[in-house]
Amino acid sequence: MERGPVVRITDVAALAGVAPSTVSKALNGTGSLRESTRVKVREAAERLGFVPDASARSLSARRSFTVGLLSTDSAGRFSLPVVLGAENALVGGELSALLATARHDPVREQHHVRTLVARRVDGIIVTGRTTEPREPIRVPMPVVYAFAPSVDPDDASVVPDDADGMRLLVEHLVGLGRRRIAYVGGRAEQAASVVRHDTLVAELAARGLELVGPPLYGDWSEQWGRRAVDAVLGRDAGAGPGERVGGAAGVDAIVFASDQLARGGCDRLRERGLRVPDDVAVTGYDDWQVMSLASRPPLTTVDMRLERLGQRAAELLIAAIEGEPAHGVERLAPRLVVRASTLGDG
Amino acid sequence: MERGPVVRITDVAALAGVAPSTVSKALNGTGSLRESTRVKVREAAERLGFVPDASARSLSARRSFTVGLLSTDSAGRFSLPVVLGAENALVGGELSALLATARHDPVREQHHVRTLVARRVDGIIVTGRTTEPREPIRVPMPVVYAFAPSVDPDDASVVPDDADGMRLLVEHLVGLGRRRIAYVGGRAEQAASVVRHDTLVAELAARGLELVGPPLYGDWSEQWGRRAVDAVLGRDAGAGPGERVGGAAGVDAIVFASDQLARGGCDRLRERGLRVPDDVAVTGYDDWQVMSLASRPPLTTVDMRLERLGQRAAELLIAAIEGEPAHGVERLAPRLVVRASTLGDG
Repeated sequence: MERGPVVRITDVAALAGVAPSTVSKALNGTGSLRESTRVKVREAAERLGFVPDASARSLSARRSFTVGLLSTDSAGRFSLPVVLGAENALVGGELSALLATARHDPVREQHHVRTLVARRVDGIIVTGRTTEPREPIRVPMPVVYAFAPSVDPDDASVVPDDADGMRLLVEHLVGLGRRRIAYVGGRAEQAASVVRHDTLVAELAARGLELVGPPLYGDWSEQWGRRAVDAVLGRDAGAGPGERVGGAAGVDAIVFASDQLARGGCDRLRERGLRVPDDVAVTGYDDWQVMSLASRPPLTTVDMRLERLGQRAAELLIAAIEGEPAHGVERLAPRLVVRASTLGDG
Repeated sequence: MERGPVVRITDVAALAGVAPSTVSKALNGTGSLRESTRVKVREAAERLGFVPDASARSLSARRSFTVGLLSTDSAGRFSLPVVLGAENALVGGELSALLATARHDPVREQHHVRTLVARRVDGIIVTGRTTEPREPIRVPMPVVYAFAPSVDPDDASVVPDDADGMRLLVEHLVGLGRRRIAYVGGRAEQAASVVRHDTLVAELAARGLELVGPPLYGDWSEQWGRRAVDAVLGRDAGAGPGERVGGAAGVDAIVFASDQLARGGCDRLRERGLRVPDDVAVTGYDDWQVMSLASRPPLTTVDMRLERLGQRAAELLIAAIEGEPAHGVERLAPRLVVRASTLGDG
């Protein structure tokens, strides 16, 4: 490993032909200097590869220019894009991101919170594994909650707008002429299952339609997606073979609460001799492309725009650090992604 | 959001009945103090929830107690566990982790490297998306490369031992009596495809066996895994229907270079009426459980122990920061994970 020599502020001052204090002012944007002097100093600093000492800078400014990213997720499927989006926005704002992953462990989370406070971070973004509301952390600096909102309405939270996502799906399915729609959720007690179901029922009702059969809940696995298809088709057992589905007696669409469920569902429908979407249209949720693109056929689904969610959380946090805190839950509009599971190959 | 009052060092000093400088010595472990004094100060600091100012501490110690985690991965499938493992080990060592994700963008990486240097991090862990060797970064502090090794043999790198992983698979398959083994790789030019192939051929040769047919290369998708099965079975077109596979004319095992490939392979074998593992045993690589557990049947595969890899990188970095740098590439032994795709349900 080759190490460059450490360039000092006096080296920059010598090359620019100014005093070291002028270099400091020029690079920190403080004091009153002629623009030509600032340019000269910056060019000298650039040429020498001079990097100002951030800890010295932070001590004088009383800001660390560092933000904590506190994640309770261990798998990272949902929180990783949020963290990446936040990090991207922070870098743009010349802030650095201290990563702290708590992995569902409250003791570990407490330790991380204490460490971030000790580091004098300017603020903290808290992300979670699910959209379940969570208890706030208590720290003497601004906090924004992303994906998992705070239960305290005075806090600032950014979450995906699940109701809006389901509205987009219903509009799409009904627009394609689907009328007999069944619903397969994940875990019954989770907001992601419940909000999607409730919105689906309300949106169908607004169009004079009803959900076919009761909603089915299980877990978030492909296995459950496959078994749920058996349960949906089993409800049609009284119909003739040609009418089990795709006709008045059965369903012509199944709305799954995640891409994993929908992918398992597509596999099982095919194995039972049904064509997707000709006999039964299928929709997922998340646009987790490892699932949504590998599914046969690829899934029509909802992209929650998690990177944008993280970016928005960073914007809200930067505003709060600068004295303009937001309050309440902001819902980010998702995006409908249309693929062959509703449209077919044509 | 409730904010606690800021506790100052003078508050701790007052409660403990000592001078502020004694508090500083007691909490930083410097100077010579009676143990009873240290205990008294720590108890006072604990009771008040006092957190020392890390930037002040770093300025005096000339260490930031911060490590940079520079990742070039955008998807995070491989680098996320490495980052989590490293972060876990760093927290244990009372260090914080600054996250910097470059997303395959050299300009962004350069910006991140400059920022980490400006932050005076004590060291940097560099992770990558693949195991392809990469150019080193040039910084005036210790660096350890994890997953993607540095091309400079003087640098310290930790990588998964792919050859060892393949040896475990061959031992397992041959131990089960499989003799006619085909290989399906991902992208032909990548180390992960090539090392696994070369080791497979060498290990078979050591047992007097040969690979059935030439290796097949494509990409890393399930789609390619499915198409590759058609290609493998197509080579057996001359054999009778009952002998296409599972007999002397065909293959009795297919080694796939990833879980995604193997999962697609299992789907296609089943669709062509072949039983896994009765007719053809299948192995994957990675133990990416979203794939390896959802596969039908679940996959026998190799766990590269990526969290341990990150942890080891952190250990090497901490040693380097403390003046004991390592050099060269350290290979981490992987773990064989046996499931139904080779053993069956029994």
